[in-house]
Amino acid sequence: MADAPLHFVVLIGSLRRGSFNAAVARALPSLAPPGVTIEPLGSIGDFPIYDGDVEAQGIPAPIVAMGEAIGKADGAIVVTPEYNYSIPGGLKNAIDWLSRLKPQPFIDKPVALESASPGMLGGARAQYHLRQTFVMLEARVLNKPEVFVAQANRKIEAATGELTDPPTRDVIAKQLAGFAAFARARKRAAAIS
Amino acid sequence: MADAPLHFVVLIGSLRRGSFNAAVARALPSLAPPGVTIEPLGSIGDFPIYDGDVEAQGIPAPIVAMGEAIGKADGAIVVTPEYNYSIPGGLKNAIDWLSRLKPQPFIDKPVALESASPGMLGGARAQYHLRQTFVMLEARVLNKPEVFVAQANRKIEAATGELTDPPTRDVIAKQLAGFAAFARARKRAAAIS
Amino acid sequence: MADAPLHFVVLIGSLRRGSFNAAVARALPSLAPPGVTIEPLGSIGDFPIYDGDVEAQGIPAPIVAMGEAIGKADGAIVVTPEYNYSIPGGLKNAIDWLSRLKPQPFIDKPVALESASPGMLGGARAQYHLRQTFVMLEARVLNKPEVFVAQANRKIEAATGELTDPPTRDVIAKQLAGFAAFARARKRAAAIS
Amino acid sequence: MADAPLHFVVLIGSLRRGSFNAAVARALPSLAPPGVTIEPLGSIGDFPIYDGDVEAQGIPAPIVAMGEAIGKADGAIVVTPEYNYSIPGGLKNAIDWLSRLKPQPFIDKPVALESASPGMLGGARAQYHLRQTFVMLEARVLNKPEVFVAQANRKIEAATGELTDPPTRDVIAKQLAGFAAFARARKRAAAIS
Repeated sequence: MADAPLHFVVLIGSLRRGSFNAAVARALPSLAPPGVTIEPLGSIGDFPIYDGDVEAQGIPAPIVAMGEAIGKADGAIVVTPEYNYSIPGGLKNAIDWLSRLKPQPFIDKPVALESASPGMLGGARAQYHLRQTFVMLEARVLNKPEVFVAQANRKIEAATGELTDPPTRDVIAKQLAGFAAFARARKRAAAIS
Repeated sequence: MADAPLHFVVLIGSLRRGSFNAAVARALPSLAPPGVTIEPLGSIGDFPIYDGDVEAQGIPAPIVAMGEAIGKADGAIVVTPEYNYSIPGGLKNAIDWLSRLKPQPFIDKPVALESASPGMLGGARAQYHLRQTFVMLEARVLNKPEVFVAQANRKIEAATGELTDPPTRDVIAKQLAGFAAFARARKRAAAIS
Repeated sequence: MADAPLHFVVLIGSLRRGSFNAAVARALPSLAPPGVTIEPLGSIGDFPIYDGDVEAQGIPAPIVAMGEAIGKADGAIVVTPEYNYSIPGGLKNAIDWLSRLKPQPFIDKPVALESASPGMLGGARAQYHLRQTFVMLEARVLNKPEVFVAQANRKIEAATGELTDPPTRDVIAKQLAGFAAFARARKRAAAIS
Repeated sequence: MADAPLHFVVLIGSLRRGSFNAAVARALPSLAPPGVTIEPLGSIGDFPIYDGDVEAQGIPAPIVAMGEAIGKADGAIVVTPEYNYSIPGGLKNAIDWLSRLKPQPFIDKPVALESASPGMLGGARAQYHLRQTFVMLEARVLNKPEVFVAQANRKIEAATGELTDPPTRDVIAKQLAGFAAFARARKRAAAIS
């Protein structure tokens, strides 16, 4: 079972076309270990601002679809900037909507976090707030290696939007290998319980 | 100058019509000390999900208007639920947009925080994340008394949406009195510098 | 293997003889599911304040002994007050020392958190800071149920130091049952990898 | 009054003789604006682990002395490493003891934070936890500029223990100038209230 194929989905916290985080997300399939496929989820821009009265009318279709994709996946990777020392509002809004689905798609779901920013901390503050949110959601968040892409503008080619910095590519590849092992251990434990 | 009139604006973190936090916000004018007026800001539901490409076309008018109202006020009160152990995405999205205005409306602005939830912690986790965001925004956030309205469903009349719980009304009145003193001290220090 | 015996150790964050948290810790064996033994670790009061120069002379014996007890256990339960909205310094100091051992005893170790305080939040703020520390230490911290014993003075008999409040006893028993399942799943996954 | 002399005290979070943070603390007097004196407080290593039963016998003399020094100062600067993604236990223990004094020395006290570490984040995670603690203590913590000395081993001369990195010296000088203005504004507001 160590070699069972795994499928991960990616939730991107930025909408900007030239987003550094979208660039990191695009690089993931090429950095994944053998047997792992990685696919982006839909856009957080397709969700309205959460409103309990809207929810009472029925959760909008793009949210339901995203929840199903997460539910079927072996793990979810969140790739996000940090806005104002915390989670981008748009990403948090997506997670708030997803948390209202039944079944709640993050329960027991392996989750890995990555962040990129032009600053020196590489989005770290957003990740620790996300970790707190995922306690509520009962996700299983990978501890390490943590991926903070600081000074992202120097590590992504402006012309092509390609993540080219070798040390950054290395740490992401290490995280994905660790995340695959983590997700497989979860599957094994579930299968025999 | 100790008696100079003060004007506070209120940013509400929930859109639900029957919101506990909207109920708390409605109670504020009746709990304010003499000389203090309190007025709600517009709705966070009028803002799109933040997108740097949209921003590049011009920040939408409702955001500009809210920023101007905050800029002119003597202080801002944030009244919000906690979603998934953190700031509601819609509220954070509003703050993310507001942070892009020039001048940035929260710089040196006195800010007070209140939260209500049906749970036992009364939204505390959202407040500490907000405090971290307001470090970035260089706001002056009041320390105490902190207002956490736990088990809010027991403290607000379901029929009328009125905040009737005496101890809750007391702590809010104390916070507003302290916030007025805090905002006046800021004004004095600024006036003679 | 579902019924394999488990042994948990307890790290207490308070030194006070009449400590609410020590009272909670004393109640744990009576609330554990069948097959689970629970034993307190030594006192955090036996550790000096961490000093890298002292460490260079050799890590003191009580720290080494506590690290070995954690290393051999199937899981560690931290029962702690909150001091000044964060982890008690003495508890953090113990963890800082333990983190210097090789092997580092918390790596991949199942950890559960409990806190008691006379206030309304029951020590929640200490727990979220502990969770962040345990990311660094690569521990596996149980998500839920979270155990926050608010107004602990009403739930523990002053005369006997016994935790008598039925709902509190229930949530702790539920957490211990969940923690046992969590620890067994870790063991299974490790055994067949 | 803009030129009234100010006296700041410095609380150091590390005990190691070759500490990067002690090196930063030693540099502060040379980076202070005119009219500002800066003096280190006593050592956090002189405090026992906090114990409410010890407190009941009387708070130990070194803690009382440190509290008086903070109480008399115009501001306190905390210079600290980050241990395990949070506040060093020894520093937190010192703050926990200081918080028990009457009058509590941090009430309304201007506080500035600095951290140095060999890692990439420069101790940021310790600072945000400290900020939460200082909400409880009702201190007035300076927002910006934040001082995170990342890769501190490259910025401090190993032979002399001198902080020589020009950009780091610049940001500290800017912070001290901003902190002096912040402390003077507090004094003015207090004087005329």
